[in-house]
Amino acid sequence: METFGKRYHPPGTPPGTLTRHTTSDTTHIHLFEYDGENFSETHSPTQQQCQDAQQNTLVDWLDVTGVNDPIAIRELGETFGLHPLALEDILNSGQRPKIDFHEQHAFLILNLPHLIEDDIVLEQVSVFVGNGHLLSFCSGDGAAFEPVRQRLRQGFGRIRTRGVDYLLYALVDVVIDSAFPLLEDIGEQIEVLEDRVLENPDKAILNTLHQLKRDLLLLRRALWPQREVISRLIQHDAELVNATMRPYFNDCYDHAVQIIDLIETYREMLSGMLDIYLSSLSNHMNDIMRVLTVVGTIFIPLTFIVGVYGMNFDYMPELQWRSGYFIVWGIMILLAIGMLLAFKWRKWL
Amino acid sequence: METFGKRYHPPGTPPGTLTRHTTSDTTHIHLFEYDGENFSETHSPTQQQCQDAQQNTLVDWLDVTGVNDPIAIRELGETFGLHPLALEDILNSGQRPKIDFHEQHAFLILNLPHLIEDDIVLEQVSVFVGNGHLLSFCSGDGAAFEPVRQRLRQGFGRIRTRGVDYLLYALVDVVIDSAFPLLEDIGEQIEVLEDRVLENPDKAILNTLHQLKRDLLLLRRALWPQREVISRLIQHDAELVNATMRPYFNDCYDHAVQIIDLIETYREMLSGMLDIYLSSLSNHMNDIMRVLTVVGTIFIPLTFIVGVYGMNFDYMPELQWRSGYFIVWGIMILLAIGMLLAFKWRKWL
Amino acid sequence: METFGKRYHPPGTPPGTLTRHTTSDTTHIHLFEYDGENFSETHSPTQQQCQDAQQNTLVDWLDVTGVNDPIAIRELGETFGLHPLALEDILNSGQRPKIDFHEQHAFLILNLPHLIEDDIVLEQVSVFVGNGHLLSFCSGDGAAFEPVRQRLRQGFGRIRTRGVDYLLYALVDVVIDSAFPLLEDIGEQIEVLEDRVLENPDKAILNTLHQLKRDLLLLRRALWPQREVISRLIQHDAELVNATMRPYFNDCYDHAVQIIDLIETYREMLSGMLDIYLSSLSNHMNDIMRVLTVVGTIFIPLTFIVGVYGMNFDYMPELQWRSGYFIVWGIMILLAIGMLLAFKWRKWL
Amino acid sequence: METFGKRYHPPGTPPGTLTRHTTSDTTHIHLFEYDGENFSETHSPTQQQCQDAQQNTLVDWLDVTGVNDPIAIRELGETFGLHPLALEDILNSGQRPKIDFHEQHAFLILNLPHLIEDDIVLEQVSVFVGNGHLLSFCSGDGAAFEPVRQRLRQGFGRIRTRGVDYLLYALVDVVIDSAFPLLEDIGEQIEVLEDRVLENPDKAILNTLHQLKRDLLLLRRALWPQREVISRLIQHDAELVNATMRPYFNDCYDHAVQIIDLIETYREMLSGMLDIYLSSLSNHMNDIMRVLTVVGTIFIPLTFIVGVYGMNFDYMPELQWRSGYFIVWGIMILLAIGMLLAFKWRKWL
Amino acid sequence: METFGKRYHPPGTPPGTLTRHTTSDTTHIHLFEYDGENFSETHSPTQQQCQDAQQNTLVDWLDVTGVNDPIAIRELGETFGLHPLALEDILNSGQRPKIDFHEQHAFLILNLPHLIEDDIVLEQVSVFVGNGHLLSFCSGDGAAFEPVRQRLRQGFGRIRTRGVDYLLYALVDVVIDSAFPLLEDIGEQIEVLEDRVLENPDKAILNTLHQLKRDLLLLRRALWPQREVISRLIQHDAELVNATMRPYFNDCYDHAVQIIDLIETYREMLSGMLDIYLSSLSNHMNDIMRVLTVVGTIFIPLTFIVGVYGMNFDYMPELQWRSGYFIVWGIMILLAIGMLLAFKWRKWL
Ligand SMILES: [Mg+2]
Ligand SMILES: [Mg+2]
Ligand SMILES: [Mg+2]
Ligand SMILES: [Mg+2]
Ligand SMILES: [Mg+2]
Ligand SMILES: [Mg+2]
Ligand SMILES: [Mg+2]
Ligand SMILES: [Mg+2]
Ligand SMILES: [Mg+2]
Ligand SMILES: [Mg+2]
Ligand SMILES: [Mg+2]
Ligand SMILES: [Mg+2]
Ligand SMILES: [Mg+2]
Ligand SMILES: [Mg+2]
Ligand SMILES: [Mg+2]
Ligand SMILES: [Mg+2]
Ligand SMILES: [Mg+2]
Ligand SMILES: [Mg+2]
Ligand SMILES: [Mg+2]
Ligand SMILES: [Mg+2]
Ligand SMILES: [Mg+2]
Ligand SMILES: [Mg+2]
Ligand SMILES: [Mg+2]
Ligand SMILES: [Mg+2]
Ligand SMILES: [Mg+2]
Ligand SMILES: [Mg+2]
Ligand SMILES: [Mg+2]
Ligand SMILES: [Mg+2]
Ligand SMILES: [Mg+2]
Ligand SMILES: [Mg+2]
Ligand SMILES: [Mg+2]
Repeated sequence: METFGKRYHPPGTPPGTLTRHTTSDTTHIHLFEYDGENFSETHSPTQQQCQDAQQNTLVDWLDVTGVNDPIAIRELGETFGLHPLALEDILNSGQRPKIDFHEQHAFLILNLPHLIEDDIVLEQVSVFVGNGHLLSFCSGDGAAFEPVRQRLRQGFGRIRTRGVDYLLYALVDVVIDSAFPLLEDIGEQIEVLEDRVLENPDKAILNTLHQLKRDLLLLRRALWPQREVISRLIQHDAELVNATMRPYFNDCYDHAVQIIDLIETYREMLSGMLDIYLSSLSNHMNDIMRVLTVVGTIFIPLTFIVGVYGMNFDYMPELQWRSGYFIVWGIMILLAIGMLLAFKWRKWL
Repeated sequence: METFGKRYHPPGTPPGTLTRHTTSDTTHIHLFEYDGENFSETHSPTQQQCQDAQQNTLVDWLDVTGVNDPIAIRELGETFGLHPLALEDILNSGQRPKIDFHEQHAFLILNLPHLIEDDIVLEQVSVFVGNGHLLSFCSGDGAAFEPVRQRLRQGFGRIRTRGVDYLLYALVDVVIDSAFPLLEDIGEQIEVLEDRVLENPDKAILNTLHQLKRDLLLLRRALWPQREVISRLIQHDAELVNATMRPYFNDCYDHAVQIIDLIETYREMLSGMLDIYLSSLSNHMNDIMRVLTVVGTIFIPLTFIVGVYGMNFDYMPELQWRSGYFIVWGIMILLAIGMLLAFKWRKWL
Repeated sequence: METFGKRYHPPGTPPGTLTRHTTSDTTHIHLFEYDGENFSETHSPTQQQCQDAQQNTLVDWLDVTGVNDPIAIRELGETFGLHPLALEDILNSGQRPKIDFHEQHAFLILNLPHLIEDDIVLEQVSVFVGNGHLLSFCSGDGAAFEPVRQRLRQGFGRIRTRGVDYLLYALVDVVIDSAFPLLEDIGEQIEVLEDRVLENPDKAILNTLHQLKRDLLLLRRALWPQREVISRLIQHDAELVNATMRPYFNDCYDHAVQIIDLIETYREMLSGMLDIYLSSLSNHMNDIMRVLTVVGTIFIPLTFIVGVYGMNFDYMPELQWRSGYFIVWGIMILLAIGMLLAFKWRKWL
Repeated sequence: METFGKRYHPPGTPPGTLTRHTTSDTTHIHLFEYDGENFSETHSPTQQQCQDAQQNTLVDWLDVTGVNDPIAIRELGETFGLHPLALEDILNSGQRPKIDFHEQHAFLILNLPHLIEDDIVLEQVSVFVGNGHLLSFCSGDGAAFEPVRQRLRQGFGRIRTRGVDYLLYALVDVVIDSAFPLLEDIGEQIEVLEDRVLENPDKAILNTLHQLKRDLLLLRRALWPQREVISRLIQHDAELVNATMRPYFNDCYDHAVQIIDLIETYREMLSGMLDIYLSSLSNHMNDIMRVLTVVGTIFIPLTFIVGVYGMNFDYMPELQWRSGYFIVWGIMILLAIGMLLAFKWRKWL
Repeated sequence: METFGKRYHPPGTPPGTLTRHTTSDTTHIHLFEYDGENFSETHSPTQQQCQDAQQNTLVDWLDVTGVNDPIAIRELGETFGLHPLALEDILNSGQRPKIDFHEQHAFLILNLPHLIEDDIVLEQVSVFVGNGHLLSFCSGDGAAFEPVRQRLRQGFGRIRTRGVDYLLYALVDVVIDSAFPLLEDIGEQIEVLEDRVLENPDKAILNTLHQLKRDLLLLRRALWPQREVISRLIQHDAELVNATMRPYFNDCYDHAVQIIDLIETYREMLSGMLDIYLSSLSNHMNDIMRVLTVVGTIFIPLTFIVGVYGMNFDYMPELQWRSGYFIVWGIMILLAIGMLLAFKWRKWL
């Protein structure tokens, strides 16, 4: 994950300035219109088609993926009466999740986490909802919404028979729930690490621990505010969310809280494992030093003794003793045994 | 305990989808009906028996254990008018404790911790309560409720003469109090560890410390929200909890708070013990190094001296001295004594 | 202090079950009745005497010490109309401090800490107060209340001329203030440790540090909630606490807050000292290793050199040089001085 | 950044005392007056010009940079009716961000962070706003406001057609957004450190880590309260901020929160990296000690053996054996191989 | 600073007991009476003079320094109608800052920190204010109030023309602002330590770090609650603080918050520095061990080799080789160079 991960204009830029960012995905626009009986899907709708959709009684979903086309997005803003600062937020992805209540519609920003080649990537999902239409802007390719598009196309489940609030729920549900597979995966990595950290605390573990901590920290920054967003969406006393939809958004809220719970739990687990890792290293060092100390403490004095009788003094009485050599061996063996017993007694062996 | 421990559908699944999970216990359904005078217990009641129970004035307890039968549970949902998202929560066990107030009944999710072969396992207990009936769903075998079933069967205590709120209290009380034997056991393990960590900081302690920290972390995640659940149950100003039952639920609340207190206290104790463990290891290392340093510092210079007089130079005057050998011994003994005194003075011996 | 320290019934026990605990003190009951003019003290009052006391206009204090007699306590409960769950809390000592407002009286639980042979022990003090009578139950021998009993007997101070709320204040004040001598003692131990930890970080310090941390943690658990209890007692808008008594309970509140402040401050001091201890150990280890390294680094190369000239090759030209031996000594002395200078430069000496 | 960074008078100085601080920038005063049609800019306006500006219907911006001239600032205070304590805050820079609502105007203090030669410097921006005029005082040279001055001079964007609240927004927006380039830069430094800390934990990293932690701590102290300032500005129900300006100040609030989020995230990253650094050092030490132990444990016993046969005893039978020398070599080689295998088995090699 | 620092009576002492503490300063009482035109100062006023002062329309400041005279203080209490528990708080210095609102006056306790011979000492300042008179009690010599006394005597500034609330402000301002010179001094000590901790982590630093942490912890305990005291003073909707005085007390509040901010920042800086210190120590240890390992690893094998050719076997073919000695030298030099290269490659040199 990116550390900074936020786009911004140089300080002093006039508000509402819309800029193309070179790393953005290509903009694709789809218009879904439906009710219980009807369903249509239009690729790259014209401005006229958009205005017509606003007039009729069908539910409209303007599904924008990729945000590399500031001109198209400004045009949509004019057609649907969107605030220039909201459009700026859509293009400058990396925003904090939030909900703003404008006059005509609510404006939500959420983060959809997913894996691209083992790296966690955040896709910013910005949604305007109100007056029977919903506009969603994905900073990436919007592939996560494919199940919702399929449910709409195939008329599967309740989705076509309900209003724009059900569509909002379906999209928010996808965004929130996207964190579960990621977190399950992290949970499995943590369980694998737990076994290794106690038995074999090598350098690779340190690397993995660090990587996981960092990812969870950035995930927490990205996902923590979403609980507040959904809570404010539920509490907003307007016609935005129908009473029968409350249990659905409550369910999203539960999931948002569970995700925060999991992230915090994992973070504390990793903190604990780093402590265990450090202790394991110290244990290891103790083992190493104990071996050196045992070997050194036994052989250094013995080497001194044999050194003594390697001296070349003309007069060294012991050297002439018939059994001198064997007496020295005896003393050395007794010394070694004594030291071994001392180490045994200290539980160093 | 399981790290992730939550079941979920793939993101984008329509809400209210009910799936069988292969690891679930087999579903058993019992219907208890009673008042001050009457008592009946029906195994695997038919849909008709359930509907009759709803009509009559007896208190009904539909006691479901094991949740591996989505079809039976969907049927119960239809009979008693339960929300599909609530049923989804029952089957996808591993939910966070919560209370939802629906139109007809309150819906509670609680976690019942118990030991299976020294491993802490969480059984999810989901309860619908309202209108003179109570439905409980245990994700496991529901053995913890056996004392309540016995009190009902034997008409022991107040339980048969009171309403459905007393039954709710009896069940919630069992769920909350189940943590006490576990925590008492953990408390004893901590006391044992405390003695060992200061005297003999071995690797097994590290393992146990880590295991206990992990269990307490997961227990905290599972039990912390229960305080809030009971608090909201007490504060909910409806006919759900009779005024005379308030002190009973207050008692449950006290216990829920005491459990959180104990968990937090144990967690801080374990954190403290890990610090002590690390300090003990460092102490130990100091002991080891001190021995090596004392032995090395005394004998390495002595070995040098005997090495000097082991050299084979043709002209080394000391070697011819009559008492050269003894002078060298004298110097070496003085040197050794001097060093021992220096170590004594530094308190290394 | 005990780690778990709570008594509880097996999960599923009917509420209000009263059990004798073998470790409880023997139950003694005293009845004090007084007003400005009258004073009487009755040992082991009969049920009739208790009922009479309730009727007359004197202030009644039923002073129960030791809770090993469930039958006597159940009888008192019936005489004074006490809730069975409250009686259960009295016998199952180790409760969290709390205040419950029943119809007829307020029910308080507080913890009175005191020293028994250098070990901190918590005595649970449970108080019912209302309608001109006060019942107090001490889980221990209630010796801490002796000054209050003496003030009553000797008519000293204001106590006899005031109502039951002043008596409540006098008892609560004793319970709260009992922590001060303990904390003063801990403060002195900390000051002694502070001096030792920097100069002489031995193993005994670690033991004491750990013991103090543990005691403060358990004291915090026991005393922290008392602030809330007194705060709720003051805020409860009933005739329970007379307006002229407010400043007195405010004073208790100040003390409860000061105690929490002291505990938190001591805890942070001990945390800080453990860090200092670890750093001191590392410093120590550095000292030890530096000595070994200096000695080893000087003498190991010198020993190699003398080893070279101890070799027995037939042709080693230096050995025949007249001044070979002295040249070698010269080289070795220069080498040693060079190394000593290098160590000096690195500030290792 | 400066650690203390606050100017203050000696305790006991009368309130409202204005003192020249020798390190302040030179005071420059510019008066901008404009509406949709008109625009004028006056350097060093006279007191009369200031009073005229207050009377007319144009928007007035009195742009003061540098605060080393207490007399000029007291004069402005008299002309515009500013509170002497507010003037004291302007001259004693290093204040905490705050907003005060006086009778005639709101008084804001904000911190504008920027880089001067790689060192983060805080410029205090103090603003009075109300009644169609705005006075801003920069403790530094106010260069950060140049884009706003340019937009005014060139009539670019909406700024000239809007009221004093839009000007306030434009200035606040610059102050808040100034943190982004700084934080992006810190984020890049952190990413560079992350790679180095695992591979090559040298002393320079420790220095950089410490520097970054310190800067973030001081930045947090300086910027954290700005969220509250903007929040109170938005919530203040007066004519100060026009309804159409709410979304603009909400946007500032979003940025203030994002900045706090980034700072906290970076702080936790750096904390994590210090732990990793310590673990890396321990790993490193283990590597070093393992080499010494392997070499020592193999060669110390071998050196003892050769020492044995270097002794000069008259009677040492092995020395006369024809193949004694080769047998010793064989034993030593076997011993060395055995030890190497033991190390291999322990994974020390 | 004192660790416990609180005076208290033995538990069970009747409330309002006033005791002389042997370490208190001698009590001096001064009575200041003034308005715009008049000013008088009376040393040791009689009870009658105090009663007269209460009656007349002048502002009265009864300035008491030193609290070793319980009888004089009880007399003042009777003259001005002060609560006995408040008087107890004045004599038992070491109280937590607080504000109590009595019927006739407000009662404040604040802590005035100052340096006595490099040691931080807390002077308790207790103030009664109401009805045109103010009584202040300093537990020490009250020297900090001298500038206020001088402003009164010399009629300098606004102080003589304002009411008792301005006098309260002047005193509170002195108490709060007294922390700034102390904190500036601590900030400078921290900056000095920062440079030393990275370059030369010696034992004296550890001592200073510990001392500063401890002082800041105790300062925090003493000063933290003052923010709340001033906030409650401002919010109290009585005639106590005149509307025109609000900005003055707001200014005090700002300073109280800045002080807390500084203390917290310094505490985190010191925590960070202890981590850096530990890392520096580990770095240092690595340096030491690396030297020992390099020297040992090169010379221990070489010493073994020369030992081999120091053996006295009758048959050792190499010894007779003409160039044996030089070949051994060659091998040893190659070995040493090889090892040096290996160390270079591992970056140990
Ligand atoms: Mg901008
Ligand atoms: Mg969901
Ligand atoms: Mg759910
Ligand atoms: Mg957090
Ligand atoms: Mg934690
Ligand atoms: Mg943490
Ligand atoms: Mg920590
Ligand atoms: Mg779902
Ligand atoms: Mg219970
Ligand atoms: Mg209870
Ligand atoms: Mg927590
Ligand atoms: Mg803690
Ligand atoms: Mg912790
Ligand atoms: Mg129970
Ligand atoms: Mg008290
Ligand atoms: Mg008091
Ligand atoms: Mg705490
Ligand atoms: Mg802290
Ligand atoms: Mg702490
Ligand atoms: Mg001042
Ligand atoms: Mg901005
Ligand atoms: Mg924005
Ligand atoms: Mg913080
Ligand atoms: Mg953290
Ligand atoms: Mg933090
Ligand atoms: Mg007292
Ligand atoms: Mg001030
Ligand atoms: Mg100020
Ligand atoms: Mg804090
Ligand atoms: Mg911190
Ligand atoms: Mg901290």
